[in-house]
Amino acid sequence: MRIAVVAPSCTLKPEAAEAVQQLAGQHPGCELFIHPQCFLSDGHFAGPDEARLAALREVMADPSIDAVWFARGGYGSNRIAEAAIKDMPEVARGKTYLGYSDAGFLLAGFHKAGLQVAWGPMPQDILRPGGEAAVGRALDWLVDGNPSACEPKLQHPAMAFNLTVLASLLGTILEPDLEGLDLLIEDVGEHHYRIDRTMFHVAASPNVRKVARLRLGRVGDIPANDPDFGTDEAAIVEDWCRRSGIPYGGRADIGHDAQNRVVPFGPIRD
Amino acid sequence: MRIAVVAPSCTLKPEAAEAVQQLAGQHPGCELFIHPQCFLSDGHFAGPDEARLAALREVMADPSIDAVWFARGGYGSNRIAEAAIKDMPEVARGKTYLGYSDAGFLLAGFHKAGLQVAWGPMPQDILRPGGEAAVGRALDWLVDGNPSACEPKLQHPAMAFNLTVLASLLGTILEPDLEGLDLLIEDVGEHHYRIDRTMFHVAASPNVRKVARLRLGRVGDIPANDPDFGTDEAAIVEDWCRRSGIPYGGRADIGHDAQNRVVPFGPIRD
Repeated sequence: MRIAVVAPSCTLKPEAAEAVQQLAGQHPGCELFIHPQCFLSDGHFAGPDEARLAALREVMADPSIDAVWFARGGYGSNRIAEAAIKDMPEVARGKTYLGYSDAGFLLAGFHKAGLQVAWGPMPQDILRPGGEAAVGRALDWLVDGNPSACEPKLQHPAMAFNLTVLASLLGTILEPDLEGLDLLIEDVGEHHYRIDRTMFHVAASPNVRKVARLRLGRVGDIPANDPDFGTDEAAIVEDWCRRSGIPYGGRADIGHDAQNRVVPFGPIRD
Repeated sequence: MRIAVVAPSCTLKPEAAEAVQQLAGQHPGCELFIHPQCFLSDGHFAGPDEARLAALREVMADPSIDAVWFARGGYGSNRIAEAAIKDMPEVARGKTYLGYSDAGFLLAGFHKAGLQVAWGPMPQDILRPGGEAAVGRALDWLVDGNPSACEPKLQHPAMAFNLTVLASLLGTILEPDLEGLDLLIEDVGEHHYRIDRTMFHVAASPNVRKVARLRLGRVGDIPANDPDFGTDEAAIVEDWCRRSGIPYGGRADIGHDAQNRVVPFGPIRD
């Protein structure tokens, strides 16, 4: 399997690229092509919109590529997501697309366009403590379709999103149909009051109200709330689900960490 | 004019209440009633949802009150906004409602329900450097209808919102009709990448795309972006307006500061 890595948001660290290249080299049947665009830098982004879009469309159109792996999160894939699926070449449909966090904008738009996408660990995750296991899990799933890499309690069809990204998708052309889903959310670096506000927003969406159940992954690096918010993220999510008639399905094994697991969107792969 | 102060989000500081009470005492024709709910505390909030809602509904229903002034921003008015306008007493319609920032959830919902609302300085602003002038401006407008308190380039009908609050209103029952508006936005405490993401979201709204023009107030306390975002907030807003066919009308004289001005929603007061 030939996997291409592109960076639709921020720049991939060279030391991450090197470590992932080495890991992939030890994985039977895996060939990794890290696109040079991953190392571009333009302010916040891994190159200007045009360069990030061009690299993404290049690997989507390349018949020698079996899977496209987003290098890392950050911010910026929303700026090219709509253009990436415009006049898509037929060959883009035979590939698998993997990433999470900010890449959720692409997962949403690509899934809506009929592509096979999944939430899961990305190359830059190898720099986290225990990150090798996370990246290994992504390869196990991409290359071998190993189901043990997946979130253990998934009920299909499922989707996973960063909560803040999900809120930013509502009302846009990229917003996916959530009806009947096992919807997994997680977040990172948001105050409790922001999680509460975002849950207010998400729970007010008629689309979100149609999910089969909503489950909460890990919420990491929560900045201190002054004063203390008085309740935690699980209670916040459960409360908004209760207020809005959304079935709350408990916790999920995803997050911005080395334990993050794969969530294939739509039907399971063969 | 009898003005009631209630706190639909966070607790009002006693020293702010005292200073505003003193300023109001010097303003001819102004009587200020600071509701004791303003000083309640329940975690992040000025009392639980029930207490904040009860105080708000109490002053809305009180025929001796001419105006309701929201004590301060923070976070929390969204949690009671929908309930506040349910089965509203007729007497609530004769009053003016003033506030900004998080109070935008109430301004939106109340305006939609046919009430006369305005964006403008709040009691807690008196603690800012130069805050007496801001609070004085609010009283000049509330008590005397003094037009010099208003944002100088307003084209009516107009509305003003904190950008992040506006995004959180999209798709909810509180979302106002923005067609043909002079829409003023501002923000505080958000990274450039967040402003960009929120503008992506807001500019993707068909409702926002119907405004007559969008103007940008001040964006304060922007945390450092690592790496530097590469562009500033005015360029970000102008870029998303251009991409989305929204007429950009330049800068506006509002913000989370002592220079903040009044923006009456809908037609001008007599």
